[in-house]
Amino acid sequence: AADWHEEGKKVILVRLETSPEDLKGMNVSEGILTARGGMTSHAAIVARGMGKCCISGSNAISIDYKNRQFETGGKIYREGDWISLNGTTGDIYSGKIPTQNPEMDEDLSDLLNLADSIATMEVRTNADTPHDSLTARNFGARGIGLTRTEHMFFEGNQIVAMREMILSNTMEERKRALAKILPIQREDFEGIFEAMTGLPVTIRLLDPPLHEFLPQDESSQKEMAETMGVSVEEIQEKVNSLHETNPMLGHRGCRLGITYPEITEMQTWAILEAALNMKNKGFEVIPEIMVPLIGRAKEFNQQAEIIHQTAERLFKDKGDRIKYKVGAMIEVPRAALTSDLIAEKADFFSYGTNDLTQMTFGFSRDDFGKFYPSYLKKGILTADPFQQVDENGVGRLVHFSAEKGRSTNPDIKLGVCGEHGGNPESIHFFHKVGLNYVSCSPFRVPIARLACAQAVIKNEKKIAKPERSAIMA
Amino acid sequence: AADWHEEGKKVILVRLETSPEDLKGMNVSEGILTARGGMTSHAAIVARGMGKCCISGSNAISIDYKNRQFETGGKIYREGDWISLNGTTGDIYSGKIPTQNPEMDEDLSDLLNLADSIATMEVRTNADTPHDSLTARNFGARGIGLTRTEHMFFEGNQIVAMREMILSNTMEERKRALAKILPIQREDFEGIFEAMTGLPVTIRLLDPPLHEFLPQDESSQKEMAETMGVSVEEIQEKVNSLHETNPMLGHRGCRLGITYPEITEMQTWAILEAALNMKNKGFEVIPEIMVPLIGRAKEFNQQAEIIHQTAERLFKDKGDRIKYKVGAMIEVPRAALTSDLIAEKADFFSYGTNDLTQMTFGFSRDDFGKFYPSYLKKGILTADPFQQVDENGVGRLVHFSAEKGRSTNPDIKLGVCGEHGGNPESIHFFHKVGLNYVSCSPFRVPIARLACAQAVIKNEKKIAKPERSAIMA
Repeated sequence: AADWHEEGKKVILVRLETSPEDLKGMNVSEGILTARGGMTSHAAIVARGMGKCCISGSNAISIDYKNRQFETGGKIYREGDWISLNGTTGDIYSGKIPTQNPEMDEDLSDLLNLADSIATMEVRTNADTPHDSLTARNFGARGIGLTRTEHMFFEGNQIVAMREMILSNTMEERKRALAKILPIQREDFEGIFEAMTGLPVTIRLLDPPLHEFLPQDESSQKEMAETMGVSVEEIQEKVNSLHETNPMLGHRGCRLGITYPEITEMQTWAILEAALNMKNKGFEVIPEIMVPLIGRAKEFNQQAEIIHQTAERLFKDKGDRIKYKVGAMIEVPRAALTSDLIAEKADFFSYGTNDLTQMTFGFSRDDFGKFYPSYLKKGILTADPFQQVDENGVGRLVHFSAEKGRSTNPDIKLGVCGEHGGNPESIHFFHKVGLNYVSCSPFRVPIARLACAQAVIKNEKKIAKPERSAIMA
Repeated sequence: AADWHEEGKKVILVRLETSPEDLKGMNVSEGILTARGGMTSHAAIVARGMGKCCISGSNAISIDYKNRQFETGGKIYREGDWISLNGTTGDIYSGKIPTQNPEMDEDLSDLLNLADSIATMEVRTNADTPHDSLTARNFGARGIGLTRTEHMFFEGNQIVAMREMILSNTMEERKRALAKILPIQREDFEGIFEAMTGLPVTIRLLDPPLHEFLPQDESSQKEMAETMGVSVEEIQEKVNSLHETNPMLGHRGCRLGITYPEITEMQTWAILEAALNMKNKGFEVIPEIMVPLIGRAKEFNQQAEIIHQTAERLFKDKGDRIKYKVGAMIEVPRAALTSDLIAEKADFFSYGTNDLTQMTFGFSRDDFGKFYPSYLKKGILTADPFQQVDENGVGRLVHFSAEKGRSTNPDIKLGVCGEHGGNPESIHFFHKVGLNYVSCSPFRVPIARLACAQAVIKNEKKIAKPERSAIMA
C-alpha cells in the first residue's frame, strides 16, 4: 500500500487480517478490507480511530497474496483494479463509486449542543494521536478516555529499541533500551496534551504481549538480526519462548508492568514529564494514567505504587509538580467481582468492555466469526455482543462493579472505553447503571452525544438508577 | 516411549508438552516430565487420571528432541539414562530411586468410612475408562462426575473417521463419518457403565476444538493424506481454516454441538444405546449427559432438545427406555451470572472450575507459567488458583450461580468436576457453598472423602450456608 501511495495513487488495503505492522499501510489507504476479524478486531478498531472505511472479516473474499489478487463473487481483482467499499453494509463494489466526506454543519452542531445540556454522562474519545484528538474535539469530545500507547513503540526507530528491550537479559539492558524510547513517547504525549488542553487525557500503559513486537516470518527475522547485530537463532529462540497458546489470556497488560516494572516507570516518566513541559508552555494538562488488565487489587496497588514513586522522583528532579490520576481498566471478570477492593486506591475505573465481553462469554474476538453466523441463524444470539453490550451478563458485571466500587470510594469516576461506548443501545444501559462517561472513536462522538441525551429522556420518569435487586435478577 | 516399552524397559516420557496424540506414550510410561504447562495442563490432568507421577511445566529442563536428550542442572540426560521424579515436589533425580505403590489398608478404609458417615457432600471421580472407574470405585468414589469423551476419538481407527468428519463438506458426509465412530464409543460407554453399576455416570459431550484432531506437522499431514486418499493441500487448507488465535475461547464445547448437531446426536445415541444394552445385561445404569461450555440458557436449551429428541428416536427404535439426566457444565463466567435461566431446564450443574478460573482471571493455563513465578515472588498471588479455588473471584461466581440455580430449580444437583474437586481447601469452600458433590481424579478420592468430613466438622457451629450478603461482600 505504501508504494502505491508514494506514486500518488489512491489505495485500498486488502489483507487476511491486520497487525500493528500494517499501521503504515492503513494510514495511507482510503479503506481497509480484511478476510478475517470482526467488529473489534485490529483492522476495525484502528480504521474506526482513523475515520476510515473498513470491512473486516469478509467471508466472501479469498485472498491470494502471492499473485497479489483476491477473488469474490467469482471475479478476480488484481492489484491496480478499482473497488469501492461500504463499511456500514459490508458490500464490496467493482469499480469506482464517488464518495463524500461527513461534515458537521450548524444544525447538527446546535442539536448536539442541546443534547449536551440534557445529558448527564460525558462523551470522551479513544484517540492515540494529536490528529485524532483534534478530530474528536471538533466533534465535541470532552476529553480522552483511552490513549493506546502500543503504536508508539512502532514509530521510527522505536521498534528497534523495543526489540532491544525484549532481547535484553538483565534489567540494566532493558532500562538502557527503554531510555531510547522515552523521549519519543514524551513527544507523542506532548502533542496529545496540547490538542486536549483543558480536558482530561487518560493514557493506558503498554497492553499487548511482547511477541507482537517481534517479526514472526523468517525473512523479517533475518532483517531484524542484521539490523540488531544478533544471530537469527537468538531471535527465533526469543520468538519461540514468547509464543503463547492463548495470547488474549497471556502475559500482557499489567502483567508486563509487574514482571518488568521498568516499563511502567518509563511510561509514567514520559507521561508526566510531557505534562510538566506542556504546563510550562501554558497548556492546561489533566493527565490520567490507566493500568490495564487488572484482576486483583494487589496488582493495581503494586502498579500504582510504582507510578507514584516514579512521579515523585520526576517532580523532585524537575522542581515542579502536577496533579494526575491513577485508575484501573476493568476488563477481567475477576476485577468486576472484586471492585470494592480495587476502588480503595483507584481514582477512576474504565470498563474495557471489549475484553470483558471476550472473557465473560469465553469468546475470542478473532475466532468468534467462525461460529457467530451459525449462532445468529439458530437464534442463540440476536445481536453481536461486541457491538451491543450484553446487559444480562457483561452488563451485570459492570453494574455490580460500579456499585461495589462506589461503596468503598464514593468519588470514583466511572467510564467505558470499549467499542460499546459508541453504541446508542449500550449507552442507554451505561446511563442506567450510572456511569460518568463513555469514550468512543472520534467519528462516533456525535452519535454518542445524542444517545447520552436520549438516555436521560427515556429514563426521566423511571428510576434513574436500577435497584440493587436488578443486578442479581 | 512406545518402542522402549515394547522392549520391556521402563520409561519416563519427556516432552515439551503433551497433546492427545501422546496418549499411547503416556499410557506405557512410568512417569511424565514436561517443560511447559502446569497444574491443569494436558500432561498433568491425564497423568493424574492414570495415577502416574508427573512433573509438568518444569522450567529447569531444556529439551533437545533432535538429539533425544534434555539438560538440567548443567547435566545432559540421554535416552536410556535413568532418572526419577517426585511429582509432589517437582524434583528430578539423576539415577534410579526405589518407589512404592500406594495402598488402601484396612485402617485407612475404616477412617474413610467414618468420614463418609459424617460428610454431607459426596465424592465422585473424573474417569474416562473402565480401568480408571474401577480404581476410583475401589477408593470409594460414589459415581463419575466427569467422563471426557475426546480420547475416544483417538482410539484405533476412530481418528480416521473423525478426520473424515472434519474434512466433510456436507451434513450427510459428516453423518456417515460419525456413524463409524458410534459403535466404538458405545462400547467404551458400556465398559464404564459396567464398572460403575448402581452409581451415576456423567458423560461430557465433545469439548476440544476440531483442530486438535488434525496433525499440525507436515510429515503427519502427508501420512494423513495418504491414509485418506486426499491431497496434502486439502488437509493443510483445513488446518489453516480451523486455526484459532485463542483456542481456549474459540469454537469448542457446545459451540461444536450447535454448529454440528449431528455430533451431539451421535454421542447421545452412543451413550443411551450403551445404557440400554447394559441395563438389559442386568446392570443398574444411571446415565447423565453433560453439555460443556454453556454461556447462555439458549445454548443449553437447544442442545438439551437435540438430546431429548435423539433419546426418543432411540427409545422408539429399541422399544425400550431408560431414565437419564441432562445438565450443564458451568465454566464460562456468563453461565454463572445467568444460572437462574439455565437451571430452568437443567437436571444438574457441574462447575468446571479449571476453565472458570481461566476466564475469570483471564489466565491461560498454558501461558500462566510464564508470569506466575513473578506473581508469587512479588506477593500478587499467594497460591496457584488452578490448584486452590480463588474464593473471592471464582468462588463468588460458583456461590452466586448455586443460589441462582436453586432459585428457579430447587431440585438441581450441583457438583464440581474441576481439579479443585480434589483439593482439601477448595472442598471446604464448596461445602460452605452447599454443593452436593465434588469429583476428582481416582487417586485423589481418599483425600477428598476425608476433606468432605472435615468440612462438616469445621462448619458445625457456623452457619452451614453463607448468607446472601456474603456473595456480594
